[in-house]
Amino acid sequence: MARWEPGARERLQAAALELFAARGFEQTTAAEIAESVGLTERTFFRHFSDKREVLFHGQQQFLQAFVDGVETAPSDASPLEVIASALQAAASFFPDERRPFSRTRQSVIDQNPALQERELHKLAGLVTTVAGALRARGIGEPAATLAAESGATVFGIAFAQWIREGERRSLSEISSDVLRELLYLAGAATRPASLS
Amino acid sequence: MARWEPGARERLQAAALELFAARGFEQTTAAEIAESVGLTERTFFRHFSDKREVLFHGQQQFLQAFVDGVETAPSDASPLEVIASALQAAASFFPDERRPFSRTRQSVIDQNPALQERELHKLAGLVTTVAGALRARGIGEPAATLAAESGATVFGIAFAQWIREGERRSLSEISSDVLRELLYLAGAATRPASLS
Repeated sequence: MARWEPGARERLQAAALELFAARGFEQTTAAEIAESVGLTERTFFRHFSDKREVLFHGQQQFLQAFVDGVETAPSDASPLEVIASALQAAASFFPDERRPFSRTRQSVIDQNPALQERELHKLAGLVTTVAGALRARGIGEPAATLAAESGATVFGIAFAQWIREGERRSLSEISSDVLRELLYLAGAATRPASLS
Repeated sequence: MARWEPGARERLQAAALELFAARGFEQTTAAEIAESVGLTERTFFRHFSDKREVLFHGQQQFLQAFVDGVETAPSDASPLEVIASALQAAASFFPDERRPFSRTRQSVIDQNPALQERELHKLAGLVTTVAGALRARGIGEPAATLAAESGATVFGIAFAQWIREGERRSLSEISSDVLRELLYLAGAATRPASLS
């Protein structure tokens, strides 16, 4: 019978990330990850369907946090106010304690084209889901998709800044700053006659 | 010696698209494409490195059109005015005669996850290249990446609308409308105190 290993999941995840970063994702096997923390390959596969899942398993909760932020925004909020609410909800998914993990995870992904594709796919899924949640609030197209894409863009830029070495601001603060920059860019661009 | 086939490239491309749409991308071989227009597999491979390239070979010129639009914008243009210029240059790459081809191409891509990933990757490459061209104009970060991402978003939404059945407006007109919607969304969202 399978023995319950307290904290096995977290230990496997930390060990996997360390090995991926040191040796490369492709060069690391599930058995090696398990062995490095004194567990069996079988235990690994009880927690993760494959080694990629170590990097992507929080995905559904992250998506849900983003969507919760859309759904809990005040009913009279404008599309980009709804996005601001979603960005704050998504940021709460990444407290500062998680920054070193997120930083290492990103460096592993940046080194592997297949993982990059998966990450892009995840962001595309985020846009589709959030646009649907905006339409459910009565926001039409193309406003819903534009707002959802803008939210994903702001999140992506803010996240990349958050994991930069030396950055001290929280993801929530950076997201607000980047969203404000987008509003400023768009605001500055409405003035010239050439765009109107 | 290889015989020169006038218009072989265009005939192969049209035949490939028709077969991909009718049978599916995976189920169609290069030999079948060539055969359907009375050419050899060898002739196919003189024009395309593989069957995927039939769908993606204009990519570099499209990217260049977008970047040309960035580079030829007036020197005092705001980041989103530069993007407006780039969108117009990119739209000129898709004259209305090309609409049926683009529509069928998209339906083939929509049915194949691997092709979708490639398309996402192409859009990600567009953002990186355009952000670089914006920085070369002296636009800082995160403004350059925000503007580039917004340009890619507007392009993507406008393109999807352009190939919709029954749509009559040109890609250039639709791009302008979608960009204006983005400016409107952002403009409307700068007012409420909750975002400032």
